[in-house]
Amino acid sequence: MINQLISKIKETNAPIVVGLDPMLKYVPEYIRQQAYAEYGETLEGAAEAIWQYNKGIVDAVYDLIPAVKPQVAMYEQFGIPGMIAFKRTVDYCKEKGLVVIGDIKRGDIGSTSEAYAVGHLGKVRIGDKSYAGFDEDFVTVNPYLGSDGVKPFTSICAGEKKGIFVLVKTSNPSSGEFQDRLIDGKPLYELVGEKVRDWGAECMPESGDYSYVGAVVGATYPEQGKLLRKVMPHTFILVPGYGAQGGKGSDLVHFFHEDGLGAIINSSRGIIAAYQQEKYAGYGEKGYADAARAAVIDMREDIASALRNR
Amino acid sequence: MINQLISKIKETNAPIVVGLDPMLKYVPEYIRQQAYAEYGETLEGAAEAIWQYNKGIVDAVYDLIPAVKPQVAMYEQFGIPGMIAFKRTVDYCKEKGLVVIGDIKRGDIGSTSEAYAVGHLGKVRIGDKSYAGFDEDFVTVNPYLGSDGVKPFTSICAGEKKGIFVLVKTSNPSSGEFQDRLIDGKPLYELVGEKVRDWGAECMPESGDYSYVGAVVGATYPEQGKLLRKVMPHTFILVPGYGAQGGKGSDLVHFFHEDGLGAIINSSRGIIAAYQQEKYAGYGEKGYADAARAAVIDMREDIASALRNR
Repeated sequence: MINQLISKIKETNAPIVVGLDPMLKYVPEYIRQQAYAEYGETLEGAAEAIWQYNKGIVDAVYDLIPAVKPQVAMYEQFGIPGMIAFKRTVDYCKEKGLVVIGDIKRGDIGSTSEAYAVGHLGKVRIGDKSYAGFDEDFVTVNPYLGSDGVKPFTSICAGEKKGIFVLVKTSNPSSGEFQDRLIDGKPLYELVGEKVRDWGAECMPESGDYSYVGAVVGATYPEQGKLLRKVMPHTFILVPGYGAQGGKGSDLVHFFHEDGLGAIINSSRGIIAAYQQEKYAGYGEKGYADAARAAVIDMREDIASALRNR
Repeated sequence: MINQLISKIKETNAPIVVGLDPMLKYVPEYIRQQAYAEYGETLEGAAEAIWQYNKGIVDAVYDLIPAVKPQVAMYEQFGIPGMIAFKRTVDYCKEKGLVVIGDIKRGDIGSTSEAYAVGHLGKVRIGDKSYAGFDEDFVTVNPYLGSDGVKPFTSICAGEKKGIFVLVKTSNPSSGEFQDRLIDGKPLYELVGEKVRDWGAECMPESGDYSYVGAVVGATYPEQGKLLRKVMPHTFILVPGYGAQGGKGSDLVHFFHEDGLGAIINSSRGIIAAYQQEKYAGYGEKGYADAARAAVIDMREDIASALRNR
């Protein structure tokens, strides 16, 4: 799957993943009203609204991008109907040929981590049958519990030819509280990066330069990105924090290798709620999907131009 | 809710939480067969099996214990039907008067952490209405992302009078890979413990000695528990790792204050799959719930005796 992601990045010339993090306040009024008319102001109504909203965006951008990253929290907040909308979104994106990175940030130990891995990447055995619960292509994983928490994911990935992205240095302002603390002269995120490199060394696909154990490093920390790019040469980096969180195109170059590969940049709000920005306001509410398409094209150019001028 | 948990611990004389982590291999054959006969060997069939299994256990032990801790991964592995069984379990346990600790180990940043908090502890706003998605009383939270990840949970808790348990030192063998690394002479788990103490200082209920920001510290690390008990005097400690993972009654005393309060010990497999142990084999498969009850009574005595002899 890591090789499939890379070939789709080359094909689209867009190292971009669109974060499908649908908050109700992003969903155009007319979509919400339609959903509420059918299902009421209920969890089902909200789930229908975010699903329709997602579908519009995916239909408008799927040919431009290699991947999407639905943030499960935004669905989980609507309980069971929200989880159904999550699954529907995952399935639809896969039908459209997109690689799906489930942003689930799970992480536990032993059989519990295995259950998460089975539920999101693998298949669960029931009697003589097997079923995929949510069936993403990649998921994000929290490393705080150590190897016991991560290895059950990599085992499932090996069998299913899927992958993970492990949180290394997150994009948020307080990420340094623990991640930047020095241990034997090195920040914790660097130690985590070294572990990700080591886990990845055991998780190389049959061909290709990148392991199926990737890393998450925030666009808001370009210097740390530069260091981590060196620490983890065979690790694909998923980079959140571009756009709405403040990361700029010029900050991103450090996350890529010289050949322009090695990283994929996420934008969520900046794409899916583009119509709410002054720059794309002309599209109006009804044109929210076209606004998203325009924002993807602008983002692609911003990254390409930063890479040209590095 | 922290005060309610404490008063239920006093009432039952049992600082015990039963982990409802139903793996299919724990579920008696006759329950599985019944569920598969009705729903087939499907996700729905598995979900029905774990729900019936849970219900049997809860009915057998609810009068003995203050709380349960369903591990969401074990439900999530069965996709949407699994999540429905999770919600059903949470609702049923609350009907039975139990405090429900959702072992979800979520953690993200800003609005995303808020969405998890809303979905599991709070209410989501949809038009003019509000709905609780999963509605546990407490959840477990991963601290790797720092205050940005934790504070959205504490804000929701303040409004809903609910609580969290933050992972500090986990019970697994590799937990030391990051958590034990020294930072300015102190292990990372101690720094996390200090943060939990500080977050908790802003999160005290109107009366009572304990904040609604608790901590998770594994029974398998009694020395670390002793230290952390001192570092976080007003923090309630949720202690996994007793029983099947190797923690013994005598290891547990360090997690409690002199008055016998301050900690709640989790056992999952050791209770819910007691009938599979030699000690309780006499109950047989059909007596799995009675075996669970006997195991709770033995665990209560093991802890009480350790506290008497401390």
